[in-house]
Amino acid sequence: MEIREKICANLSAVKEMNPLIHHITNYVTVNDCANIVLALGGSPVMADELDEVAEMVGFASALVLNIGTLNSRTIASMLVAGQRAKELGVPVILDPVGVGATKLRTNTAEKLIRELKPEVIRGNMSEIKVLAGLEVAIKGVDSLADEQGSSMIARKLASQLGCVIAITGKTDVVSDGRQVCLLDNGHRILADVTGTGCMTTSLVGTFCGVTNDYFTAAVAGIISMGLAGEVAQASLRHGEGIGTFRGRLLDSIYNLTPETLAEEGKISYE
Amino acid sequence: MEIREKICANLSAVKEMNPLIHHITNYVTVNDCANIVLALGGSPVMADELDEVAEMVGFASALVLNIGTLNSRTIASMLVAGQRAKELGVPVILDPVGVGATKLRTNTAEKLIRELKPEVIRGNMSEIKVLAGLEVAIKGVDSLADEQGSSMIARKLASQLGCVIAITGKTDVVSDGRQVCLLDNGHRILADVTGTGCMTTSLVGTFCGVTNDYFTAAVAGIISMGLAGEVAQASLRHGEGIGTFRGRLLDSIYNLTPETLAEEGKISYE
Amino acid sequence: MEIREKICANLSAVKEMNPLIHHITNYVTVNDCANIVLALGGSPVMADELDEVAEMVGFASALVLNIGTLNSRTIASMLVAGQRAKELGVPVILDPVGVGATKLRTNTAEKLIRELKPEVIRGNMSEIKVLAGLEVAIKGVDSLADEQGSSMIARKLASQLGCVIAITGKTDVVSDGRQVCLLDNGHRILADVTGTGCMTTSLVGTFCGVTNDYFTAAVAGIISMGLAGEVAQASLRHGEGIGTFRGRLLDSIYNLTPETLAEEGKISYE
Repeated sequence: MEIREKICANLSAVKEMNPLIHHITNYVTVNDCANIVLALGGSPVMADELDEVAEMVGFASALVLNIGTLNSRTIASMLVAGQRAKELGVPVILDPVGVGATKLRTNTAEKLIRELKPEVIRGNMSEIKVLAGLEVAIKGVDSLADEQGSSMIARKLASQLGCVIAITGKTDVVSDGRQVCLLDNGHRILADVTGTGCMTTSLVGTFCGVTNDYFTAAVAGIISMGLAGEVAQASLRHGEGIGTFRGRLLDSIYNLTPETLAEEGKISYE
Repeated sequence: MEIREKICANLSAVKEMNPLIHHITNYVTVNDCANIVLALGGSPVMADELDEVAEMVGFASALVLNIGTLNSRTIASMLVAGQRAKELGVPVILDPVGVGATKLRTNTAEKLIRELKPEVIRGNMSEIKVLAGLEVAIKGVDSLADEQGSSMIARKLASQLGCVIAITGKTDVVSDGRQVCLLDNGHRILADVTGTGCMTTSLVGTFCGVTNDYFTAAVAGIISMGLAGEVAQASLRHGEGIGTFRGRLLDSIYNLTPETLAEEGKISYE
Repeated sequence: MEIREKICANLSAVKEMNPLIHHITNYVTVNDCANIVLALGGSPVMADELDEVAEMVGFASALVLNIGTLNSRTIASMLVAGQRAKELGVPVILDPVGVGATKLRTNTAEKLIRELKPEVIRGNMSEIKVLAGLEVAIKGVDSLADEQGSSMIARKLASQLGCVIAITGKTDVVSDGRQVCLLDNGHRILADVTGTGCMTTSLVGTFCGVTNDYFTAAVAGIISMGLAGEVAQASLRHGEGIGTFRGRLLDSIYNLTPETLAEEGKISYE
């Protein structure tokens, strides 16, 4: 089956199966993540207490771990939830927000990767470079890295970790270590809104909840956000900006059809 | 006084008295809860630290406890705040989010009910069935339960616990153990947005801040959300969805008048 | 340089330099604070774990401390981050949300001021009166205090603490202990939305990230919010309210130009 058919089928499956997506995530963008999962057709649950995460992940079709506002309590919960997910065959999707900015973030991301072997890692170029052991300038949680060599880096890291690596940026790159897919949807205004990276990870997680083909799930999640960004941006009138855009972004995911997703994705292979 | 007159008077009272509604709530929908309380005419305060909650509840007209992202720290705070509320005669409104999904949630909800005897409990059919000791299929924090028998369950549990039980769903049910009221406002798109349940509880809490008639307060809160959902949904144009809807929902609560609330509520009695 | 030229230059500098603004803030309005910093042209980072805040503040151009949902864990982090900020010459901006409502808030605000000597403190009239040791009626986190004498209070407290004091209200007042500036932009609907105070502090923090003239930075931040509130309110049509307003507020900050900021600020001196 060609990838366009697969992502079309994946979105239909999300809408039919309403997969439960368990998040342990940051408190900055958590509401956006919950709403975007709902908009796509999934069912979000955010639960981070050590005493309940293993039980909660038992209901889930995917587990999204996002270290945006990590702390010692939630790191412990991520490890416990992740271990239970692995036992149950629930895919783990990691968003290593700000890795490289602080030792705590770097150590935590590395530990989560080592102990949980996530099925998908989605980050910006800076974050993925840090995980790949490359030199990179850091400024908080935003990427300063140029995107040169992103295909090679994605492929190599994916191969090394045995997972899918998704790098979002001007051109997005997804690799499972063998295939490398380049995605060219989106609009630069997406970088002007907080949480678009986190939301993309949540969309990827939602698609991972309905398929074992995590490469395709990552492609589907990233194209969904790119297309929604394009539609939302095109709808803006004079005087409108990121406030209106944020609402329209959710609208666009809510109205995204499997057919549109398949037809309008700008997909190429390296 | 007929119930329509009472809810009309209640909304006027909210707008005049701006009751302070202390919340110990989850970090997913907390911003929505704060804004909906403001939109109705109340004054929200979110404070969850053990060292200050007893003092803060001393200013409050109602205390809303929501276990959506409970943890050991905030559970302790809920108990202390709740005990102080009972001493002061401040009504306690409980939203048992996801009860039944994990032992922690079930034990916590049961403990809060046992120790605090909340004035109102608002949940979906699954949550209320769990509290009533009935069998129910669970999937995260969303309801899978059908709504058959909801009137009987609400009445029985209300009678047993000596409180008001409000079950929100396609048809909403409110009972104080004697009266049972069915409410038929709302639109199914409300289930596609995160936090509409939490926000309904916050609206109920706000009405509880201006009256001792918690049955009527629960009815008023639920109809407010239902009417706002109808107005917001009717305003959507082609291409709009839950992003725009969320904003319009707040708009509609903000513009809701006591007269509209009284006139357009679809209220029937069993 | 006249103040209008300075605030014009400050906004240009924000857009050019994208200063990183480290926040340790509350979970109610944190998303709004992140988005408003982005809308203005800055780069927000929210990190509150003791183990990483000192490192994170090393990348920052300003540190915003907001005690809206303080707890013992984040208070400790505020102190550590603040001490590191002082060592590095990074300005500290304090929002003493709800100070006076509970002993914890009052003690924490006083400790942060004593130990960190913030460059700017922004609060409402009640909060600033509490810090000035004056009598004031308290109700949760909203201001009940009338604004009489605000100029004198701002000047005196600024002089005493050696910092900039900004009091927001119907008329906003900014003083560095010598100059007192009165600002008359804004609209009362701003008080109907949660987080407009917090967002104002974040805007002030963002301007503090590009200048050492914190008096002007405070003026620029407050006028930005006032103007955005005016534009957003004027755009509302029949049936719209705080939901739509919130989005438009971000839109208006996003589209605010240095020239408009300079020209339309209603600035007077006492």
